[in-house]
Amino acid sequence: MLAGVNFFPTVSPAEKSAVQFFDEALDLSILADRLGYSSVKIVEHYFYPYGGYSPDPVTFLAAVATRTERIRLITGANIPAFNHPIKLAGQLAMLDNLSHGRLDVGFARAFLPGEFEAFEVDMDTSRARHQEGIAAVLKLWTETDVVWNGTFHRFGPVSMLPLTYQRPHPPVFIAATSTPESFVWAGSQGFNLMFIPFTSTNEKVAGLLDLYRKARLDAGYPAGSERIQMGIHCFVDTDGDRARRNAAVHYADYVDKMASTWEDYMERSPSQYAGYADMITGMRRKTLAELEDKAQVYVGTPADVRQQVAATLEVFGDVEPSMQINFAATPLSDARRTLELFAAEVMPAFPAPD
Amino acid sequence: MLAGVNFFPTVSPAEKSAVQFFDEALDLSILADRLGYSSVKIVEHYFYPYGGYSPDPVTFLAAVATRTERIRLITGANIPAFNHPIKLAGQLAMLDNLSHGRLDVGFARAFLPGEFEAFEVDMDTSRARHQEGIAAVLKLWTETDVVWNGTFHRFGPVSMLPLTYQRPHPPVFIAATSTPESFVWAGSQGFNLMFIPFTSTNEKVAGLLDLYRKARLDAGYPAGSERIQMGIHCFVDTDGDRARRNAAVHYADYVDKMASTWEDYMERSPSQYAGYADMITGMRRKTLAELEDKAQVYVGTPADVRQQVAATLEVFGDVEPSMQINFAATPLSDARRTLELFAAEVMPAFPAPD
Ligand SMILES: [Ca+2]
Ligand SMILES: [Ca+2]
Ligand SMILES: [Ca+2]
Ligand SMILES: [Ca+2]
Ligand SMILES: [Ca+2]
Ligand SMILES: [Ca+2]
Repeated sequence: MLAGVNFFPTVSPAEKSAVQFFDEALDLSILADRLGYSSVKIVEHYFYPYGGYSPDPVTFLAAVATRTERIRLITGANIPAFNHPIKLAGQLAMLDNLSHGRLDVGFARAFLPGEFEAFEVDMDTSRARHQEGIAAVLKLWTETDVVWNGTFHRFGPVSMLPLTYQRPHPPVFIAATSTPESFVWAGSQGFNLMFIPFTSTNEKVAGLLDLYRKARLDAGYPAGSERIQMGIHCFVDTDGDRARRNAAVHYADYVDKMASTWEDYMERSPSQYAGYADMITGMRRKTLAELEDKAQVYVGTPADVRQQVAATLEVFGDVEPSMQINFAATPLSDARRTLELFAAEVMPAFPAPD
Repeated sequence: MLAGVNFFPTVSPAEKSAVQFFDEALDLSILADRLGYSSVKIVEHYFYPYGGYSPDPVTFLAAVATRTERIRLITGANIPAFNHPIKLAGQLAMLDNLSHGRLDVGFARAFLPGEFEAFEVDMDTSRARHQEGIAAVLKLWTETDVVWNGTFHRFGPVSMLPLTYQRPHPPVFIAATSTPESFVWAGSQGFNLMFIPFTSTNEKVAGLLDLYRKARLDAGYPAGSERIQMGIHCFVDTDGDRARRNAAVHYADYVDKMASTWEDYMERSPSQYAGYADMITGMRRKTLAELEDKAQVYVGTPADVRQQVAATLEVFGDVEPSMQINFAATPLSDARRTLELFAAEVMPAFPAPD
């Protein structure tokens, strides 16, 4: 089966220094490459112990590129609204060359109003900037003497260097969460998809995936040619109780960091966050045990996790788990054990289709 | 002596693919790390076979960081006018952590009007954007709850993550070329300096370095505490004639790419480049032999280069050569030989001062 590693740093400097976090993430990436995992992903976020150690996914992936041989590198995701398309196109093309064509590019709209304020971008324009930015990057990768007359950018004629290693361009993934239009749009463009089930219900998410797959078929892309990455927490141990006990602690801390980030932004500008209080309360209420009931987490023994993987593939179809194995302050030794047990005792139960 | 390697890619895709260029640059960086060189530098440029393979210096240096042990990594240079200070501060802090504190940060104003057009930035604001951008990045690295109310950026309060590994922040270098105010400003701020002698005369450049050192002393920084990097082409061979013959070919090609880039921008918007025609003609006229007469290049046998190094240190004082060893289509084997001969037979003649 295809299964990847997903870094979403949720530690404060007091809990784990940035240098320790990145040393561990590099160690885990090298191990994942050796054990046959399909991808390494890292996020773009700012300011808080909720992704904030990684304001630039390309920088970390470039460091991984030259220490690994075959694993794919996926930005999870770049935010076009915060980055000029020329810079983004150039930086990603460098990474595609440094990795000899192992780049998968993820693009996201972003959702934290405080990040839009910091980048001096009106959040009301987020969808339009997202779509224009992606289109501009793709044009810069595939055409010469590019003239761009968009709503947010006007430039050219320019011919971008370097060319991407993968031609016409690296695979593109769109991060979508809960807005049906986002799923339909991603499908209609023939893009691949990144989604996260744990903030919703499986029924809702399965419906959104149906919309995506249907839009892709309607636009003429062959069935099954899509790639779908599913973000999910994973903690495996030979002792299932110990796995659940430890994972629950780190998961609660992860949720607290997510909720605290929202709360801190709310305190700063309450008017921008009307209606978010309920969402935050809901976040804090969800426990790991509830996620396990819904197969929205992989936790327990390898046998438990095989069942959970089977359940997610049953509900969501052919998707690639992109697994958070070091959420919050998970020790490196636990994350390594998760990777090793999953590779040895879970992956072989799900052979790749022909 | 301190001596570094300086990558300024000047090849077209037809001459050397980007993947080959970066494979070779990584190979040379690893060799330089092993041979005791002090730094690896790479430029930020766009669109043309005049630096354009490297639109983002951090991406390449992150790839070098995890393949090297001790060599310092220097952005040569980042352009604040083209990058939001939050992105720049975050990306550079990631690199500082990935390299365990080996980052030296260079900042430059940029000088190609076509690059400003592409980034939709008025070139008349380049000095002000340069200075504001540097100040904002330093504040983001050293303070929490940063509020920025500048001419070009307004944001905050924000507290940046990750923190830089080097505290309070990595060493800062300013790229200056020919404007006296730039040298005085860099000195008055206590910054380190990057300069390039070969586009001017040694007398003029020595005068600019005097201005820099005096401004630094006047601002209270101790004499000799500055670090100065000098960009220079270098081609060493045991056969001096062969070195000169080969280096002259690649140097002429390098100059042609530099001049062609200016000419292409001129064709596109002649009004913006009034007075540049003479400068371009001057560029094309200068030969490697003339540079050698002025010790503005290191070329020949190790014995020749020892004399040239002594001459530059005599004229410019305590500076660190930052050497272009693979300019234009220089084959990898020639660049490796340059590095090996310089390390074995030139460096030992210039022991570091106590
Ligand atoms: Ca608004
Ligand atoms: Ca498929
Ligand atoms: Ca708070
Ligand atoms: Ca102007
Ligand atoms: Ca000194
Ligand atoms: Ca031309």
